[in-house]
Parts: sequence; C-alpha cells; structure tokens
Amino acid sequence: MTREDYERRMRRAGRAAADAGLAGLIVTPGPDLAWLCGYQPPVTERLTALLLRPDERPVLVVPALERPDAERSPAGGAMEMAGWRDGEDPYAVMARRLAHQGRYGISDAAWAMHLLGLQRTLPQVSYTSLTEGLPMLRAVKDEHEVALLAAAGQAADATYEDILKVPFAGRRESDVAADLARLLREHGHSQVDFTIVGSGPNGANPHHEASDRVIEDGDMVVLDFGGLKDGYGSDTTRTVHVGEPTAEERKVHDIVREAQQAAFEAVRPGAACQEIDRVARKVIKAAGYGEYFIHRTGHGIGVTTHEPPYMVEGEHLPLVPGMCFSIEPGIYLPGRFGVRIEDIVTCTETGGRRLNNTPREMGIVG
Amino acid sequence: MTREDYERRMRRAGRAAADAGLAGLIVTPGPDLAWLCGYQPPVTERLTALLLRPDERPVLVVPALERPDAERSPAGGAMEMAGWRDGEDPYAVMARRLAHQGRYGISDAAWAMHLLGLQRTLPQVSYTSLTEGLPMLRAVKDEHEVALLAAAGQAADATYEDILKVPFAGRRESDVAADLARLLREHGHSQVDFTIVGSGPNGANPHHEASDRVIEDGDMVVLDFGGLKDGYGSDTTRTVHVGEPTAEERKVHDIVREAQQAAFEAVRPGAACQEIDRVARKVIKAAGYGEYFIHRTGHGIGVTTHEPPYMVEGEHLPLVPGMCFSIEPGIYLPGRFGVRIEDIVTCTETGGRRLNNTPREMGIVG
Repeated sequence: MTREDYERRMRRAGRAAADAGLAGLIVTPGPDLAWLCGYQPPVTERLTALLLRPDERPVLVVPALERPDAERSPAGGAMEMAGWRDGEDPYAVMARRLAHQGRYGISDAAWAMHLLGLQRTLPQVSYTSLTEGLPMLRAVKDEHEVALLAAAGQAADATYEDILKVPFAGRRESDVAADLARLLREHGHSQVDFTIVGSGPNGANPHHEASDRVIEDGDMVVLDFGGLKDGYGSDTTRTVHVGEPTAEERKVHDIVREAQQAAFEAVRPGAACQEIDRVARKVIKAAGYGEYFIHRTGHGIGVTTHEPPYMVEGEHLPLVPGMCFSIEPGIYLPGRFGVRIEDIVTCTETGGRRLNNTPREMGIVG
Repeated sequence: MTREDYERRMRRAGRAAADAGLAGLIVTPGPDLAWLCGYQPPVTERLTALLLRPDERPVLVVPALERPDAERSPAGGAMEMAGWRDGEDPYAVMARRLAHQGRYGISDAAWAMHLLGLQRTLPQVSYTSLTEGLPMLRAVKDEHEVALLAAAGQAADATYEDILKVPFAGRRESDVAADLARLLREHGHSQVDFTIVGSGPNGANPHHEASDRVIEDGDMVVLDFGGLKDGYGSDTTRTVHVGEPTAEERKVHDIVREAQQAAFEAVRPGAACQEIDRVARKVIKAAGYGEYFIHRTGHGIGVTTHEPPYMVEGEHLPLVPGMCFSIEPGIYLPGRFGVRIEDIVTCTETGGRRLNNTPREMGIVG
C-alpha cells in the first residue's frame, strides 16, 4: 500500500460519506484508521481523529507528542496535521475543521468521552456510528483483499487438518487450544484472536473459550479459531467428535450442516443480510431446535475478525460482490453439547464462494 | 476480593454518583468494570454494561451468549442479569432499567455507537464521561491498593537498578527495551505496558518507543517503563548517559530534577492537580526551557497505568489522601536529546510519598 493507495481510499471514503448524506467522517484509532491511512497509534485518552470530508484534504487531529510518528506514517504527507497540546481543548481544535452543521459518521469504537466533547462543542452537529451511517466503508473488499482473506482461510484450513491428528481424549481443552494457536502461527498467522475448544457441555456455551476440562471419549468438541495473516482475518469452526457419535449427536450435526449449506446457497448480490440469517434459522427451526440457535448467523471479516455487515434479523443491507462474512449457525443443548459449523464466504456476481474448504462433515478424533 | 468487597464498591460508587448529582453510572467493559465487579469480558461490538443507581441492585446488561460467564464472575450473584439476544435492541433492554431523565456518568471508553444508541432511545437523558462526572471513582486508593502500587513501584526500582548494569553502547534501543521487559517480568510484573528507550535525538520525542537505532557513547538515554504487577501499575522514568555527559546535558538534567522535586514537594491534600503541573513548569520556564516541556506533568495510576486524575493546567480537582499519580516533567531538544524523570507519588495526610525510590541523579551507563 503506497501513499497514493491510501489517498485514493480516503478520497473514496469522503465521497461515500457524501453519497450517504453525511457531512464527513470522524475516524479514531483502530482498524478503520489503519485501513484508511496506515496510521496505527496506541488507543489512549488523548484524542486522535482523522477528518474526511468530500473533496477536501484529510485532516489528522493528533496529540502534539504523537505528531512526529503521525507524520512518518504511510499517508502522513497526504494529511493536514492539526496538533494539540496537553491543556488545549482538542474538541475546539477539531471544531475549527468541521462544518458546524450536518451529520457526521464517527467510528463505532470512538470513546464516548470524545463524542460527548464534540457534542458539547458543536451542538448543531449530529452523529451516527460508521456501522449505521456508512456500513459499507470497509465491507466491500477489492480483489487484493479477497485474495488475502482467501490465503488466511487456507491457513485456517491447514490448521484444522493438522488438529485432527492430535490426541483429544485425556487432554485439557486448553492444551488443544494451545495447539490451535501454535498451528495458526505455523501456517502464517501473525496474530491469534481466538481458539475456542468447547468439549461436551462446554460446547453448549457459544462463547466458551477453553478451560481446564479434560476432554473425554464420547465428547462432542466445538473448535472455533482465527486471527490475522498478513493483516487479514480468518475465522472458522468445525465440530468434531471423540470416537463414535450417538445417533442424536449425528442428527444435530446434520441439521447444522444443512442450515449452513442452505445459508451459503442463499448468498447472491442483492439478498439482504437478514435473509442469510433467516434461511439458516428456518432449517434449524423446522427440525425442532429453533430455541437452541441463540446467536446471529454471521459477521463481516476483513482487517478485523468481526466487523459489519452482520447476518442478523433486522439487517436489510443488500449483499454486494466483494463482501466477505462468516456463515456459522449452531445448536446449543444446555448441559449437554453444542454444534457449530462456520465458513468465511465471499459474495461474487454469481453467488457465494467459500474461503474455507475443509469437509463440513463431523470430524472424528481420538 | 470477595463478592462482598465488590458489592461494597458498587454500592459506594452508586452513592458517589448521587453525591455528584448523577442519576447513575453506565460502566462498559474495561478497568472500571473489572474494578467494580471483577467481570472482564472481551470488548466487542455487543453491548455489555453495568448499571449502578444509588441504593438499587446493580444490573448487568449482557449479551445472552456471555451471560453464563457473567454469572460465574466474582460478583455475578450480586447483579441482576439483563440478557439480550442478537436481533434484540440492547438499548431498549437497557432503557427499561434506567430512569428516563437526569444525567448518567458513562465510561470514557464506552463505544460511541452505544452512546448514540442510548441517546436515540432515551432522548431526555443526558450523559457525562466518568472522568468528567465522577473523576474520583477509582482515583482515591485504599491502603491495600496503595500497598500494591508500592510493590509494583519497588519492582520497577529493581528493574532500573538491574538495567544500569547492562551494556548500552553498541546495542540497539530495542535490545535494551527487551531487557527492560524481561526484568519487569522477573521482578513480578504479569503485564508490560511500555518500555521506552529514547537514545540521543530519539529521546527528544516523548512518545518514541524503541527503535533499531544503535546507542552510542555520549548518548543521553530516556528509559520509561512500566506495567502491571498483581493487577496494579508501575510507571517510572530515569534518564541515563552513556559515559560522561557534557556540561549542557548535566544542566538540562539538573533542571528537570529540580522541577520534579519541586512538584513533589507541592503535593498536599487540597492542592489542585494543575498546581503540581504549574510548579514543575515554573522551574523549567525560569531556566529558559519552557517551550521544550511539551506535555502535562502527570497522570493517575491504579489498575491501569494511565488514568485520572491528570496533573495538567485546567484540572482544578483537589488532591485527596490516597490519590496516586506520576510526576514526570521533561525537556525535549529537537534533534538533540531529551530528559524526563518520573516517579509515582501518593498523596498522604502530610504530603507526598514516593512509590519509586531509586536515585534521580543521572545514571551513568557503559
């Protein structure tokens, strides 16, 4: 990514803001800022914010003592630097560069303290979160980005193939989680975001991570793992079984697999995000397990492992070629076991393309 | 910390909110939440928030899939759990538990997206950041907390004593930074937050971290390091010199040391935070280096390494026994060198007490 690439991204974002009826964008440190201009300062209580307005030069409001680093960042030369010193009011510094009316999009994770400071300083201006006001900012990936996500997906696939060979029975969940982290790194990940190992009843808690529980013969085990490779995310889930599953375990797994497949087949340009969720949910509900599917069907992925768009009831945003997101239905039987199957999928002109390609059949481990 | 300890803290916080004219507190994941109830969920786009109102039972608004973890957390049994599922409106869930008027304190780092959601749902309510509305929430430490900060300070002192013995000349800043991190861990830190090594001209950038620059004989080197030990922070800075300093280097170091000492002596109950900053700045200004002291004089410390109160112009908050904060004036000569000296200090009934106790004279290294 050159300075010119970042300049193009910032220009495109400014125009997209105008198209969305926004006066501009206020982007604080985090993935959006890094994606827009390559600058990744630490997140602290001191306000740093990139201001983007259509067809105007980007402005970076930056604490004076971080200004040298900001100037040296990839697009440092393409931004006006508006430094502020401790004791100065950063919101006043910012207000001098903002139109004093209209609606701005602001980073979802901008600090409430900073938003309150801006609201106090510019009471005429209104704000909307970027997810709400400009959900498409990073949602549609270009070819280069899809290729990086596919490479991260391949590394996650290789990790899954390797984990099938390690022993499960008699080892702690945390041991298998450590194996997953090691394998993700071996296959090129620079950052591991999560390595969920949910065995037996722990699998019935979708946000269980990994505990000291010793995995036993006969356990169902949910494996959900991912992180960043070359700056782009992986996130995949497979549910395996230690030894032979019961008929019920097999049935529940089949239902989830069918739901995942149906949702995948529903991916096409123009389909609403909530449609993907509905299709998966319909399969599970029809099988009588509707009340045990207790989360949304998916989330976007890119320079972070969780981002808009969300595949959830109420999200009317249409799918667009280049969008990349998870499809991960699950069934969670409290106190007993859980099943989840997840792939990253990209929407193409002709339908979905999976960026994970290991078998979705129940893996049998030892 | 038992469930009862946390209950007491939450009750005290609810009453402090009322005393500050607030209808209650909205605390999102982060240090405040961990300090209040011992629950440390991952920070995600899904709203988790603790609601505290005077003399009412605490409520934890929590995503359904994180509810089991929340219930098992140290004060899980002391809070009403208000779960919400994907697809539900978490702000409506929250609004059912809030008074529909008045002013709430909200975590500084709460997501802007969540604040906007609350503002939309409850337009009659107003909000203020916890730093602004209740700056004292965690600022005054009890004896147990001061003891933990003192122990972290001792570990930082031991780290400094050890680093004086390692070779500097001919090694990269990043090598010395790695030594600092290793030593902090050896002396009991579980988390290293920063290991700044600013040699020669790099020392003139107060937020420089550590680069590949090879340290040379004759360099001034700023060493600023800290992290968490047993959950409480350390943060100390000493400026050392490789070999014999010049007369000018010695002079600048003496001025900073004098400023640090003067600010330390100004610590007493009732003194405004800005007074500490003014005293340090006055010394440096009188010596002709005022324009080269480009940051505030200090910040609070506790379960995080940077928190309110801030020793900065405009901060009228009076010091109270039990407050713990850094005093860290500096002089930064662009392109040449920098000097900073920092101790953690606690305010007692009779004045300041240093929690760092290594010599503040310029250390000479080889």
